[in-house]
Amino acid sequence: MVETKRRHHMALRVGVIGGGQLARMMIAPAVELGLDIRVLAEGEGMSAGLAATAVGDYRDLDVVRAFARDVDVVTFDHEHVPQDVLRALVAEGVAVHPGPDALRFAQDKLDMRARLAELGIPQPDWAPVRSARELQDFLDAHDGRGVVKTPRGGYDGKGVRVVGDPGEAADWLDGLADGEALLVEELVPFVRELAQQVARRPSGQVASYPVVETVQRDGVCAEVIAPAPHAVERLTEVAEEIGVRIAEGLGVTGMLAVELFQTDDDRILVNELAMRPHNSGHWSQDGAVTGQFEQHLRAVADLPLGSTAPRSPWSVMINILGGPSEGSLGDRFESAMAAYPEAKIHTYGKDPRPGRKVGHVNVSGEELDDVVYTARAAASHFD
Amino acid sequence: MVETKRRHHMALRVGVIGGGQLARMMIAPAVELGLDIRVLAEGEGMSAGLAATAVGDYRDLDVVRAFARDVDVVTFDHEHVPQDVLRALVAEGVAVHPGPDALRFAQDKLDMRARLAELGIPQPDWAPVRSARELQDFLDAHDGRGVVKTPRGGYDGKGVRVVGDPGEAADWLDGLADGEALLVEELVPFVRELAQQVARRPSGQVASYPVVETVQRDGVCAEVIAPAPHAVERLTEVAEEIGVRIAEGLGVTGMLAVELFQTDDDRILVNELAMRPHNSGHWSQDGAVTGQFEQHLRAVADLPLGSTAPRSPWSVMINILGGPSEGSLGDRFESAMAAYPEAKIHTYGKDPRPGRKVGHVNVSGEELDDVVYTARAAASHFD
Repeated sequence: MVETKRRHHMALRVGVIGGGQLARMMIAPAVELGLDIRVLAEGEGMSAGLAATAVGDYRDLDVVRAFARDVDVVTFDHEHVPQDVLRALVAEGVAVHPGPDALRFAQDKLDMRARLAELGIPQPDWAPVRSARELQDFLDAHDGRGVVKTPRGGYDGKGVRVVGDPGEAADWLDGLADGEALLVEELVPFVRELAQQVARRPSGQVASYPVVETVQRDGVCAEVIAPAPHAVERLTEVAEEIGVRIAEGLGVTGMLAVELFQTDDDRILVNELAMRPHNSGHWSQDGAVTGQFEQHLRAVADLPLGSTAPRSPWSVMINILGGPSEGSLGDRFESAMAAYPEAKIHTYGKDPRPGRKVGHVNVSGEELDDVVYTARAAASHFD
Repeated sequence: MVETKRRHHMALRVGVIGGGQLARMMIAPAVELGLDIRVLAEGEGMSAGLAATAVGDYRDLDVVRAFARDVDVVTFDHEHVPQDVLRALVAEGVAVHPGPDALRFAQDKLDMRARLAELGIPQPDWAPVRSARELQDFLDAHDGRGVVKTPRGGYDGKGVRVVGDPGEAADWLDGLADGEALLVEELVPFVRELAQQVARRPSGQVASYPVVETVQRDGVCAEVIAPAPHAVERLTEVAEEIGVRIAEGLGVTGMLAVELFQTDDDRILVNELAMRPHNSGHWSQDGAVTGQFEQHLRAVADLPLGSTAPRSPWSVMINILGGPSEGSLGDRFESAMAAYPEAKIHTYGKDPRPGRKVGHVNVSGEELDDVVYTARAAASHFD
């Protein structure tokens, strides 16, 4: 724990930049751990509003500096705080977790690919491309298709296009400034997607969660099964080893999520990284001894990590997306709760909009079929 | 859910009177359920300070009325809000759960005994006593010993004396006003203490938790084992039946805890009642699908109750009491977390004082011996 806070009656103050649902879901474990959680929110009425002590622009150094002054450690709801802001904080002695040297690899997919290559981590073939010519060369070498990504700012499927012709990325190519490039990756013939989560403390302790299977719909995480079904021991070990090597190799502090492809020839390739609690880990709130939000707080506060053991043989998480529908969200929560008393329904306090994540359902149990059925049936009240 | 709040984007506002650890532990599930929790605290810096929206005296009708104006339902951290204040709120149309007609039986032990007698609930022999003569008569009829209680204001062993002579209660007898009486009960030859928890919604739905064994030290709950070991089916059924009959018979809304004696001839007798989340139910935060704090919120908000099924075969809760000790509480939490990553440590954000409850440890698992060992070993870091 940070030295200055060891006086027994003062709670360690954890400052979270960003007021979304990830910050919101840190509130519950912060209260139980006795941490004083404070949130710098983007505006009033944000998801994590209960803990918001400041409102302002996270790109403004003065705003972030003033917020950081009253906390013992700074962490994040998202990865969008600019490097220059982060580096200024660190230069002023603020504890920032994850720090800028790690976060840059979550902020820039080209930097990430280059660093993973240095570390020898298995990943799809990739290249930086600055022109239609370079993109065509890559496509020619990969059966004529590839995945083009903007290195920065993408999430939930945004900034990602599958292309068969450079013309399909012409707008992005035309928009490149000098020295900028797009990322192109091979279209991996995957049989399913997995996610590996690892927590790491500044002092070095690491804890891995069991690898999970994730199901994406329209580029958004829709469903997670924990642990991943049919995960032979070798797969579990490889996924964990990849997660730990990335956490240590990139110097991640807090929670790391590694999105993985499992190929038809049973290779495991790294798709994306996130350095914060992640949608693929929401199951752990109810399904693991230590949920990812508690673990993230322990890690960034440099407190001993908790057990990542599952509480039940199987857990399933299903996202609730807002959209045009009859009846209020409150009515839907109520009918789902009435029908499935074993379902854990988490709400984000957000107005529903089409495709917007407004909550999720966790169900745990002994039999995977039953757990999947119950989770889907409970979530169907929100369709 | 309260009708006026069914608009989808407005959270139901639950007002909790009292800022202690029970209110604090409602914050985490309130956030996940999407309830807007607001606390009327006794002062600044209370345990539930994060959710405190008002500070004031809960005995002052104006204070409580102003607080109640901005919430949809009023509930409690404790049972000490005076009847006249509660009745004034109800008369003004405020939803109060539990309501004054139920709470009076938790506020006055003589009223409770009389009502349980009407309901035919098994309980120790008891009598109201107004004089040394009446007390002596009761003692003469019960092997010369009895438990004298002040009907109001007692908790954690305060207001309770085991006596063999009326002189030992002389100060209490002398202090009685006209029309007042003390309660005397037989000294029950119990083999152990149990607790039964039941949640009940205003609309009538009831959910029972498994009966647990509680171990008291110096009149304070020290350890809870859930479910109660060696609880034959008949015992479990009787305890549940008693809990449900009391919840329904007394019109309790929210969580009810019934403290029970198990006698050497296997009778179950009611010791005390609490109409709120209770120390005997802290295990459920980590050991049951729906923790008691979530269940209390669901119940008072008249939302469907959650499953009370245990997540693991066994859970053990051990209280952490403050006291004179080397090192800070923070250091002790850290060392306990490091040694027992499977222990769930809950902190109340309170300055330690001798005997004061400052937190608790929950451990769950497959083997009772292991679970008890781990919980005690983790808690020993606070000795």
